[in-house]
Amino acid sequence: MRRALALAAQGPAYGPNPRVGCVLLDPAGQPVAEGFHRGAGTPHAEAAALAAARSRGVDPRGTTAVVTLEPCAHHGRTGPCADALIDAGVAAVHVAVADPNPVATGGAAKLRAAGIEVTTGLLADEGEELLRQWLHAVRTGRPYVTLKLATSLDGRVAATDGTSRWITGPQARAHAHTIRAQVDAIGVGTGTALTDDPSLTARTIDGGLFEHQPLRVVVGRRAVPDGARLRGPGGALLHLPEHDLGAVLSQLAEREVRHLLVEGGPTLATALLAADAVDELHAYVAPVLLGAGATAVGDLGVTTIGDAARFTTHDVTRLGDDVLLVARRAQHARPTEATESVQPVQPGRPSRHPKEEI
Amino acid sequence: MRRALALAAQGPAYGPNPRVGCVLLDPAGQPVAEGFHRGAGTPHAEAAALAAARSRGVDPRGTTAVVTLEPCAHHGRTGPCADALIDAGVAAVHVAVADPNPVATGGAAKLRAAGIEVTTGLLADEGEELLRQWLHAVRTGRPYVTLKLATSLDGRVAATDGTSRWITGPQARAHAHTIRAQVDAIGVGTGTALTDDPSLTARTIDGGLFEHQPLRVVVGRRAVPDGARLRGPGGALLHLPEHDLGAVLSQLAEREVRHLLVEGGPTLATALLAADAVDELHAYVAPVLLGAGATAVGDLGVTTIGDAARFTTHDVTRLGDDVLLVARRAQHARPTEATESVQPVQPGRPSRHPKEEI
Repeated sequence: MRRALALAAQGPAYGPNPRVGCVLLDPAGQPVAEGFHRGAGTPHAEAAALAAARSRGVDPRGTTAVVTLEPCAHHGRTGPCADALIDAGVAAVHVAVADPNPVATGGAAKLRAAGIEVTTGLLADEGEELLRQWLHAVRTGRPYVTLKLATSLDGRVAATDGTSRWITGPQARAHAHTIRAQVDAIGVGTGTALTDDPSLTARTIDGGLFEHQPLRVVVGRRAVPDGARLRGPGGALLHLPEHDLGAVLSQLAEREVRHLLVEGGPTLATALLAADAVDELHAYVAPVLLGAGATAVGDLGVTTIGDAARFTTHDVTRLGDDVLLVARRAQHARPTEATESVQPVQPGRPSRHPKEEI
Repeated sequence: MRRALALAAQGPAYGPNPRVGCVLLDPAGQPVAEGFHRGAGTPHAEAAALAAARSRGVDPRGTTAVVTLEPCAHHGRTGPCADALIDAGVAAVHVAVADPNPVATGGAAKLRAAGIEVTTGLLADEGEELLRQWLHAVRTGRPYVTLKLATSLDGRVAATDGTSRWITGPQARAHAHTIRAQVDAIGVGTGTALTDDPSLTARTIDGGLFEHQPLRVVVGRRAVPDGARLRGPGGALLHLPEHDLGAVLSQLAEREVRHLLVEGGPTLATALLAADAVDELHAYVAPVLLGAGATAVGDLGVTTIGDAARFTTHDVTRLGDDVLLVARRAQHARPTEATESVQPVQPGRPSRHPKEEI
């Protein structure tokens, strides 16, 4: 399964389809063929592995298929993988993650009905991690939202005169471009679109464009000018003249956007955070203090520390002088309305003699 | 020398004297004795190593002394180490860092005059790093100033109701206490002293006091109340009713404070930053967003990004969900008055079409 996960990771992180890897083992447990999904319109991992076996003259009959995601049971652009495995005569299928996709699920049941031994949950955590954004999108019907912030240590995104290039250094910026090349869409508000005239392309260190360019999404009612860089080379431009975030996310889900990267500005970031719609934070923090200037995030309605938007740190990476903190929505991080209503508001300043010492 | 540096690091980081280690090598290059300085009033490293040799029946005559800091040439609480090495008949002395202390320097010259071979600069960078705070204090006549910040990702130190316990988690707080146990003094402004009633003690995880307690320094004109925790168990309390930061640092230097840890609040932190008097930042950053509330740093007079107070990252450590970013004053980080005066001020907002793309 570790090999199957490594194969899966070779597929593209963007796109409507999940990344899947498949290894076929002979009855002695030796790998005889492998495959992975290279993106929508290409063979699924199981079909790729079966084809690889046949092209090497290996009969897949009696083999065990180790697959990172439950084989699909539906006819999409390709036939159902469950049928392909049954037809090929595999003896057993080991799966990491069950398929939550309502249109594709049922593969395990179909395989079992055909007399094939199926086990699920093998290295499930790693499988879930690899498919995190896709699983979220399929389970919730909304894209996985990653909010990127690039701030000074005191949380500023620009100096008082509006200058912000560059708070973070070249390694942090290059990293942010590799993330752009892995997502389906990048979103900004019209304020950022008009003020910064960003191109929102995914660029290599030498300034060239990555092969995959994410959809460029502008949220808000103001028009994107004709000469804007957003209309230049890069991904398609989608302007959503909309203030309802739920509607924005639904429209993106309908366009098969699984992973949306939001790059600002503060208005859009604040609205998403206030709506608890941010699944992951990418905070690039520079060892810089500004003391004044625009902040990354506006008023969230948080008045006391217990109500803070608290995330769980997933990873910390040093990028030159900067730090990238990747944090994810904490479970029950913010009080629900129910618990809020039973907590009395504590007015005024804190006790002069709080229980805990500083 | 690596062993000598490791020995030196066993001495206390606080206190007026530098941490020094010494290894004696026989003519074949084998270590025969070693020693390190355990703090003011105890033998210097060289004396400790010579005593260790003699206690083991080893004659130090003809040995080579490997010492992390140039042996002193002055009579302090103990006699000059240069004389002790000469009297012991050592043949050669290898030194990492030359002694910048005007009252103690001259040891190398004295040794050479006695016919002893002296080399300096061996692992000098590591030696400088180990003695960083002490060297700064001796070279500049001012304590090394470390500013501690504990903030949300958007640079807030408290929510709008003033609550701040706890933005950072238990691992970050425990780490901060180990730093307190390594410094000579902790400073806060009267605002923090009155609002938070901190104890400013160095405490272990179970709440006990570390053996070494730093001097507690309160800067500002308002009185520290009789019942304040600052007057409770812990280090001595020093109230400096003073707004002149230069005078504050001079008075601390006179009390042999080599390393001052400043823990707030924003007024004192801002004044130190604006005066470019912060040598090191310890920024504990929590994966939390508040959107409003007090910021870590007030107005620094920075209006454009090029004038930001920019530090150089020295180390990044994950502490539970939090990140500690240790950054140091960058060389020429802020424009001098001379360069400021020749740069025309760019009024208004930035160009709609800046040269570099986002």
